[in-house]
Amino acid sequence: MEEYAVVGKRLPRVDGPVKATGGAVYAADISLPGMLFGKMLRSPYAHARILNIDYSQALKLPGVRAVCTGKDFPGIKYGFLPSTRDQLPMATDKVRHYGEAVAAISEDIAEEALDLIVVDYKELPVVLTATEAMREGAPLVHEEHGSNIAATTRLNFGDVEKGFRESDLVREESFTTERVSVGFIEPHAVVASVDASGNVTLQGSKQSPYITWRHFCRAMDLPLSKVKVINPYVGGGFSGKHEPFDLDFAATVLSRKTGLPVKIVLSQDEVISSFKQRHHKDVWIKVGMKKDGMLVACDCRLINEGGAYASVGPYNMVVFTLGLVMPYRISHLRYEAHRIYTNKPWCGAVRGQSVPVARYAFEALMHRMINELGLDQVETRRKNAIRQGDTTINGMKIDSCGLDEAIDKAAGMVNWEQHKRQRLPNRGVGFACTSMPSGTRMGGHYGCAAVVKIDEDGGVSLLHGGTEIGQGCDTVLAQMAAEVLGVSLDDVRVIPESTDTSVLEAGMYGSRCTFWSGNAVKAAAEDARRQLAEIASPLLKTDKEDLVFRGRKVFPRGREEKAVPLLDIVRQAYYSRGQPIYGRGSWAANDIDLPDMKTGSGNIAHGWGFFAQAVEVEVDPKTGQVKLLKSVCARDAGRPINPLTLDGQVEGGTVFTSGQALWEECQFDEKGIPLQSSFADYKMPTIRDAPLANLNHDIITNDPWGPFGAKGAGESSNSTTLAAIANAVQDATGMAVNELPVRPEKVLAALKKRERRP
Amino acid sequence: MEEYAVVGKRLPRVDGPVKATGGAVYAADISLPGMLFGKMLRSPYAHARILNIDYSQALKLPGVRAVCTGKDFPGIKYGFLPSTRDQLPMATDKVRHYGEAVAAISEDIAEEALDLIVVDYKELPVVLTATEAMREGAPLVHEEHGSNIAATTRLNFGDVEKGFRESDLVREESFTTERVSVGFIEPHAVVASVDASGNVTLQGSKQSPYITWRHFCRAMDLPLSKVKVINPYVGGGFSGKHEPFDLDFAATVLSRKTGLPVKIVLSQDEVISSFKQRHHKDVWIKVGMKKDGMLVACDCRLINEGGAYASVGPYNMVVFTLGLVMPYRISHLRYEAHRIYTNKPWCGAVRGQSVPVARYAFEALMHRMINELGLDQVETRRKNAIRQGDTTINGMKIDSCGLDEAIDKAAGMVNWEQHKRQRLPNRGVGFACTSMPSGTRMGGHYGCAAVVKIDEDGGVSLLHGGTEIGQGCDTVLAQMAAEVLGVSLDDVRVIPESTDTSVLEAGMYGSRCTFWSGNAVKAAAEDARRQLAEIASPLLKTDKEDLVFRGRKVFPRGREEKAVPLLDIVRQAYYSRGQPIYGRGSWAANDIDLPDMKTGSGNIAHGWGFFAQAVEVEVDPKTGQVKLLKSVCARDAGRPINPLTLDGQVEGGTVFTSGQALWEECQFDEKGIPLQSSFADYKMPTIRDAPLANLNHDIITNDPWGPFGAKGAGESSNSTTLAAIANAVQDATGMAVNELPVRPEKVLAALKKRERRP
Repeated sequence: MEEYAVVGKRLPRVDGPVKATGGAVYAADISLPGMLFGKMLRSPYAHARILNIDYSQALKLPGVRAVCTGKDFPGIKYGFLPSTRDQLPMATDKVRHYGEAVAAISEDIAEEALDLIVVDYKELPVVLTATEAMREGAPLVHEEHGSNIAATTRLNFGDVEKGFRESDLVREESFTTERVSVGFIEPHAVVASVDASGNVTLQGSKQSPYITWRHFCRAMDLPLSKVKVINPYVGGGFSGKHEPFDLDFAATVLSRKTGLPVKIVLSQDEVISSFKQRHHKDVWIKVGMKKDGMLVACDCRLINEGGAYASVGPYNMVVFTLGLVMPYRISHLRYEAHRIYTNKPWCGAVRGQSVPVARYAFEALMHRMINELGLDQVETRRKNAIRQGDTTINGMKIDSCGLDEAIDKAAGMVNWEQHKRQRLPNRGVGFACTSMPSGTRMGGHYGCAAVVKIDEDGGVSLLHGGTEIGQGCDTVLAQMAAEVLGVSLDDVRVIPESTDTSVLEAGMYGSRCTFWSGNAVKAAAEDARRQLAEIASPLLKTDKEDLVFRGRKVFPRGREEKAVPLLDIVRQAYYSRGQPIYGRGSWAANDIDLPDMKTGSGNIAHGWGFFAQAVEVEVDPKTGQVKLLKSVCARDAGRPINPLTLDGQVEGGTVFTSGQALWEECQFDEKGIPLQSSFADYKMPTIRDAPLANLNHDIITNDPWGPFGAKGAGESSNSTTLAAIANAVQDATGMAVNELPVRPEKVLAALKKRERRP
Repeated sequence: MEEYAVVGKRLPRVDGPVKATGGAVYAADISLPGMLFGKMLRSPYAHARILNIDYSQALKLPGVRAVCTGKDFPGIKYGFLPSTRDQLPMATDKVRHYGEAVAAISEDIAEEALDLIVVDYKELPVVLTATEAMREGAPLVHEEHGSNIAATTRLNFGDVEKGFRESDLVREESFTTERVSVGFIEPHAVVASVDASGNVTLQGSKQSPYITWRHFCRAMDLPLSKVKVINPYVGGGFSGKHEPFDLDFAATVLSRKTGLPVKIVLSQDEVISSFKQRHHKDVWIKVGMKKDGMLVACDCRLINEGGAYASVGPYNMVVFTLGLVMPYRISHLRYEAHRIYTNKPWCGAVRGQSVPVARYAFEALMHRMINELGLDQVETRRKNAIRQGDTTINGMKIDSCGLDEAIDKAAGMVNWEQHKRQRLPNRGVGFACTSMPSGTRMGGHYGCAAVVKIDEDGGVSLLHGGTEIGQGCDTVLAQMAAEVLGVSLDDVRVIPESTDTSVLEAGMYGSRCTFWSGNAVKAAAEDARRQLAEIASPLLKTDKEDLVFRGRKVFPRGREEKAVPLLDIVRQAYYSRGQPIYGRGSWAANDIDLPDMKTGSGNIAHGWGFFAQAVEVEVDPKTGQVKLLKSVCARDAGRPINPLTLDGQVEGGTVFTSGQALWEECQFDEKGIPLQSSFADYKMPTIRDAPLANLNHDIITNDPWGPFGAKGAGESSNSTTLAAIANAVQDATGMAVNELPVRPEKVLAALKKRERRP
């Protein structure tokens, strides 16, 4: 394996000092000359017809500059999937969930002015659960759709009935997971400026300026080149900040009306009560297993309750199957799923999409079946683990895989053998494994591009399409550029992201950044290096291919004593030739398939990453509270570019997901009005709730498609933690954890039931 | 000649609406979170040793956050030419002119705090004129330089003495032009932000962010990639905003010290009294002419009094010769020039450099000699005019030239024949011609680059290295991109300029933008078109070279009925191939010479533009005031890209330069203290002083090197107006205009003298 100088090193984040010292400017910090402040008027009903909006009194309030309602927009619906473009910038005819925006106002006393807008609503009956929504004659969320079933998926691989007949043990269970909020610390915020030529600039807190850009232009009927979306520092995304939201649209219209920049920053109340959430999921699952623990068949039904708009919901159902066909070998799968409209805030992608829930249902049932057969949790998983060279039943090819080794390593780190020999009271250990793709093709835009420019003093400027939302992509991508060009990480500066200057990017989702943007960055850096090599080659009397770039020098391979400083070559380009060193690179996996929503078949990704997690918990017999003692993760992320930032991803994913496992739940009253509206009544995990110990280990597999052999890992532990915690609680208490979150009262009831047992 | 769709059209400026509606954000408009305001402490002496600076009381003032002095900088001197890098960010040991910055302070009550800084000065004797400065034993401005002569140039072409012997008429005169301020409306302004990683962002009002960037990094000892210079809209440059100034350095150090952004906006007082000015010039010139008016030889001496720092002064002396060897054929030239240090604000480039003064001295003397020989002003000039194919005595090759035709055209537009036949009382007509290069190589950085990116919806984004300082380059360069790609000007959006994202640019000077950046933009657009053609070629079953891009369509040459929309091709790239359309282009005239400061020889530019101007004036016999009745300009700007913006350049140049001809003068008292400090006592021309009529005409010569045949014209009328006005006054009054400005009292004296004559 080639020895790298920068890649694979535990280097501190390039954006660390700025963020740690409070110097990072987030969207809400931005101030522009003459800037006004905006505020949204939101629906107090979960379902109501809008009869009239009278904002004449609001406009009379001294200082109020403009009001905007749904009528200010072209009336074009937008959304991720052509079949379910069901969302308007702001509600026009009716509201479909509590908190849907109906108007916005811009000025310094916006809150007072909002009170002066009179909206006449005709309250409509609400549908709040999938069961209600699917009932014949239920009120419709979207009349024009004719049904509350936004989309349905039915997939079939192999012969599941035959599989069950061939199994020695067949068990079925139902699992439920509740809605949770996305959980970023920085609420949605935007500063919109529309200039006299109609050019729009949005400075927002976005996970992907590109997805926002495309949806925004579609809904506003504007060409892309009239709109630029600039990302300042972003305080977390977790897939909750992909699209444009009502505030982006409203701020733009208010800016257009007033001729001044308009800032709108949502409150956490608005985010928690009225914005994007993770789907409520009802999963029925049936698994067949041989008596030696080998998996044979799986039958599964999913009801995806997703609120007022479809967003990526239909896609979310297909992604669920990734958590069923992998990471264990299985021969037969039948799957049916429905995405349901209700009068609740809409649900879309949240970190890991639906895989965490698929893994939870599958692993929790598997845990019990392994115990029922008297087998070992570790050995059974290892035997079932998918291997390099495998093709899954739906056609996905595994080019690199270290899962079996990872399972053993995780067992070792959590001291599984010792735990089995000598069980401590109220302690439990749970295992779960997952695989995640290193990005997929989604929709039309799937390519990535990057630019690497070498300044005349030898510094390197990197423009990539990834979005630094805290995951460390600026650091990892800069390391790749540094590696190719033989400079240090300090020499590389990442150019702030804007749709204005960046080249091509589909968006930041599905653990794709290291892999996709990484390949583009590598190509761009290699293009720049090629230009440098053309100048260095005659100087060093060496073929271009035999030149080594290392330590800010260029030399013929094996003859470092002949090295010339890289800067000399750069200067020759700029000063003798008047020629910039400007590398461009793009990457698009044209050989992989678009996810087929009908068949669920196809090799939809390269670079499948594999992760084995074990969690040790302690249950408090007095309170029923679950404490996370230890989390270990053995990971096959190919060849990690920066194990330090990877640790951050893995440990952060565990803490993030532990909230859904143990505490978080978005609740609503019978009219669809949310019961939680702040961090005081919505419990997100903090550092005090994190596992007391975190251990990580890398199984290095050097993926053939990944840049420097790396694979994505942003949704790794995030996809296993629900399952691992549930299994650890099952292990500690013997209770069947079929509903998340595992609230203390449920644990306490289970413990009491066990005590009563003879 | 090929028919163009966009190029050559009188299209309104792309930045017009934003500027006209007041929506353009200039540097002083910028506001950043927590931003502080800074203020400079300036020297009250023209020459003094700094004994001590005590800012302890200032620091005690509530609200004062930081103070900065010259000691906060690394002590590295910067400047345009390696031989005369004589400038520090702020004065340390001594001050060399009135208003030199000695300290800066940042907070909200900066002005009050400045009063609390106690600077102990030891006043030094001043030198204020070239004569004083060159005297033996004169006080030295830069002791380490050993002399007040910063640089000397001596050039010799042909045999000037022989030339005079062969001439029929030899005359000599001395001419003087006074210092003038650069004259932009927007004073210098900057917002500096230094982040916790030490990255510096400057948002300033700069003519060239690139020159600022390089000088700033040199003086601050920072790598280029740690610093980005962003240009907001700029309110005029005229070569007065190239370099970093004390405010840029001070704001940066204050931001570093406080951790907050710091804004410093200079007052017009500071700009007019203490900043960059045009050199005071004493010119002695001797010209030999045949009796038919043909020019033979010229001998010239220039004393360039330039204040405390050299800036581009040495280069300015060499540029002066461009105004002597052209635009008329001449066989012998001798030239000697000295750049003199004095204790006045430093002088550098101002629009047209030294050519306007060279043309003034030459044309004013020529006017008199033509009259003395009884010849015609127009015919004599036309006979002497340089022609296409000529090589000047110092080696400059003329590839395209329409000067002779331009002279005739100008004479026609100003009704010269009628004026000669029937002279009206107190009316005068003056002629002058000039040539200006379309940019030269200056220093190490001479290349230009551009990027043309095609968005997935067919919009075009253009990133170029030119700087829009009011001259219209965003419009002209966007037209070129539109032409190549067959789209309309509206489809092209210019990406705002920043050293961060732009590729390579030497800087905005010497009428180079249309020509140099234009060639780079054209190359980048052609690169993008090539990428599109590769996709379109198989679709249209046509060779790439035979494809026409026009009207947002692509079609085989001559078969427009087969056209496919450009958008289809773009979509195929993005959606079927995952491939960006991203064109890059650069241009560097490697075949031309660097200006040789020693010999003055060499073909230093392509694309010489030629201009013939005539001005008609009326002199008020009661007040001596000169009124500009008419200005006409016949111009050979190759094939103009946008005649409308070219009109703006030409008419603006006339008004701009008329100030130096008639009103403007920076005066000083005997201690070097300036007498003017505002527009109330410094008279710049306004629209009310502009010529009552302006006529323009294009001689289209289609330069072989220029993009679409265009040549630069930014300094065209600007280089002839001094001479044309002086000659018009000479024609009206008979007085010898040997000093500028032509103040009314001088005119009145001349008129009185003429009356007294029998």
